[in-house]
Amino acid sequence: MTKQVAVILAGCGVYDGSEIYETTLTLLRLDQLGIDYRCFAPDIEQHHVVNHLTQDVVEGEQRNVLLESARLARGDISPLDELVADDFDAVIVPGGFGVAKNLSDFASAGDNMQVLEALKEALIGFRHDNKPIGLMCIAPVIVPRLFDDGIAVTVGNDPAVSGAISAMGGLHRSCGVEDIVVDLEHRVVTTPAYMLATRISEAATGIFKLVDRINEMMDLTTG
Amino acid sequence: MTKQVAVILAGCGVYDGSEIYETTLTLLRLDQLGIDYRCFAPDIEQHHVVNHLTQDVVEGEQRNVLLESARLARGDISPLDELVADDFDAVIVPGGFGVAKNLSDFASAGDNMQVLEALKEALIGFRHDNKPIGLMCIAPVIVPRLFDDGIAVTVGNDPAVSGAISAMGGLHRSCGVEDIVVDLEHRVVTTPAYMLATRISEAATGIFKLVDRINEMMDLTTG
Repeated sequence: MTKQVAVILAGCGVYDGSEIYETTLTLLRLDQLGIDYRCFAPDIEQHHVVNHLTQDVVEGEQRNVLLESARLARGDISPLDELVADDFDAVIVPGGFGVAKNLSDFASAGDNMQVLEALKEALIGFRHDNKPIGLMCIAPVIVPRLFDDGIAVTVGNDPAVSGAISAMGGLHRSCGVEDIVVDLEHRVVTTPAYMLATRISEAATGIFKLVDRINEMMDLTTG
Repeated sequence: MTKQVAVILAGCGVYDGSEIYETTLTLLRLDQLGIDYRCFAPDIEQHHVVNHLTQDVVEGEQRNVLLESARLARGDISPLDELVADDFDAVIVPGGFGVAKNLSDFASAGDNMQVLEALKEALIGFRHDNKPIGLMCIAPVIVPRLFDDGIAVTVGNDPAVSGAISAMGGLHRSCGVEDIVVDLEHRVVTTPAYMLATRISEAATGIFKLVDRINEMMDLTTG
């Protein structure tokens, strides 16, 4: 049977949504491996809209996370509250500031962050079923807030973010851009991606490794 | 010396801008080959904004092509009127409806289409210098409007679009999604991408072939 992976998006664009290259490279690798995927995003307003040329916040403009994420999914996407772990073999969360602004408030609250309820429920479902969870870039900060069991993750080598992960009771491991950190026991795989990448091919190497490892872990689940 | 390729964008999203996967896969392959690239987009208002979930036009909303394209370029982008063929060894135009709505009016005017002046000037510069030009998806419709010399291109096998290309004096060749059409004499390479693709890995195969061929052609120019 074809494996099914859920991919959770947070908008479309590195500064206020999901990182576009991280998402595209994730979908490419899943498809190259013959894995079916479905994208999900919350049907909520974005935290804000950022001008990606100047990095300034665009005052007064509002966009919807599901509708912007639909750009990144060529329209083929479902509301996040419809995501049920039972329907999938694994879940992947690409990075981008949208994860820290729309899917959580990490960008403003740091280690006091809260995670969007729909994301929390979805990820707890996957964890409960012991299904593999992949996260890249800034997305691993969600892990120590949701799970108490000291899961090893990486965001590369950023002192502030890794410090926040530690402060929330998580376990941070430094990692190069073209590599992954695997918590075998908890079946969580993370890669720094654009926390460190200066070139798209570097990000691709780490992301492809992450997806390949998630694929191997699904074999162990279903095999 | 490192080869330099210009990539021309038309917004961010298949229905009103550049196709996101086609653009990302182009940049990935360029970077994997060690080629430097720079993105360009016109600083103009979008023809319209499309809700990518419903495909309906969003009445009253306006977005700027350069600012939306900046999402797809992680902010690293220049206005199209700054693009000069002298600075680059080749140019690539990914597809998406933005090419037929923002860079030209093909979506509404068909074979009576006009091409945005800044794009026209840029592409004529590359053609004049005999530098390779790559176009994917719907973008090849620009070729017969700008150049009189019966350049062979493909948009896959769409009868209406290939008919319009013929009506404008162009030469259309049918082509599978994972393949390319090469006009060796005029140094133009095209691939159907999402005119035909049903899976991202199919689009990737054709796009990687296009970039690889452009790379070989640049060797012939510079070698």
